[in-house]
Amino acid sequence: MSEPLHFYFDFSSPYGYLASQKIEALAAKHGRGVDWRPILLGAVFKVDGMAPLTEIPLKGDYARRDMDRSARFHGINAFRLPSKFPIPTQAAARILLWTKDKHPTLAAPVAKALYRAYFFDNRDLSDPEVAADAAATVAGIDRALARAAIDDPVYKEALKREVDGAIQRGVFGSPFVVVDGEPFWGLDRFDQIERWLSSGGF
Amino acid sequence: MSEPLHFYFDFSSPYGYLASQKIEALAAKHGRGVDWRPILLGAVFKVDGMAPLTEIPLKGDYARRDMDRSARFHGINAFRLPSKFPIPTQAAARILLWTKDKHPTLAAPVAKALYRAYFFDNRDLSDPEVAADAAATVAGIDRALARAAIDDPVYKEALKREVDGAIQRGVFGSPFVVVDGEPFWGLDRFDQIERWLSSGGF
Repeated sequence: MSEPLHFYFDFSSPYGYLASQKIEALAAKHGRGVDWRPILLGAVFKVDGMAPLTEIPLKGDYARRDMDRSARFHGINAFRLPSKFPIPTQAAARILLWTKDKHPTLAAPVAKALYRAYFFDNRDLSDPEVAADAAATVAGIDRALARAAIDDPVYKEALKREVDGAIQRGVFGSPFVVVDGEPFWGLDRFDQIERWLSSGGF
Repeated sequence: MSEPLHFYFDFSSPYGYLASQKIEALAAKHGRGVDWRPILLGAVFKVDGMAPLTEIPLKGDYARRDMDRSARFHGINAFRLPSKFPIPTQAAARILLWTKDKHPTLAAPVAKALYRAYFFDNRDLSDPEVAADAAATVAGIDRALARAAIDDPVYKEALKREVDGAIQRGVFGSPFVVVDGEPFWGLDRFDQIERWLSSGGF
């Protein structure tokens, strides 16, 4: 089995959400799996001096328009910018790390359920109760254990390690996909990933 | 005749250069022309607080790699990041505005000759003499007049107006294409522009 695609994303990232709807099909087409790797863009912004996209003058207005248009372009109807945006995403990220630890086969459905609660159901995913509710919509996930993982020092520490490791590896955005060591930033690099997987690089 | 595509770019922008190799074919395929509109990203950065891509931590390293890869992906061999980068591009921009004024049919060849001097021949396009040399490679351009345009208050003022107008219109990056009022940022939106032109919006 080849290496999975390392799919880095923040649960508060609109383009990360759009990419989450596309990454599995792209990977599967080339016999690859997906390693879902939640990060915290807030930690990245401390390193690169950036800010949430929608808060940047000029770029913010464009981004709101581009997100909706990109969703339509990619045939993703289930998208709307949540009323509370952006949000801190530690709760969702820790639940996902706990899932990967305890129920590795459920990582993809849990990640997608969490994303969906925020970008489709417009629920405030920064609230630990909301995050636990969303995860528990996946069969096999115990809500109480998922909720407990958010405050568990083991998963707090695991998330810190993940985020630090991602930054060390040069990850600075969401989505960010690493394919056999080659980094690709953005849903708009999926065409390049496709060719990279087909041809083994170009 | 439909509206031309409004193609905004900075002569120091690598992705602007790559896009300059693609924009005419894209426009022509849909019966459109191209209005070549030079801007100064330095002026945009004063508004949006951003910085040249290669100077941003983490993102800078990625960008250098992505530029080369994107050039290969799009089949553009004639690209290399110049040894002096980024540069101020007032000289080149004013020559182009002068060309549009005096020799409108030569705007595209002059824009491409200027870009080529920098990104292919690795010449310092911020030097007025280099910019005049590059423009004068286009038949019909008088080198002395092109050189004089750089210091002409008329074209200094015209460039200021262009840049201010672009920012007012929401332009903040390079390349930035406005199609019948719809804004698209980045070479990686050319697929969306293509569909927009084919379908009259989506």
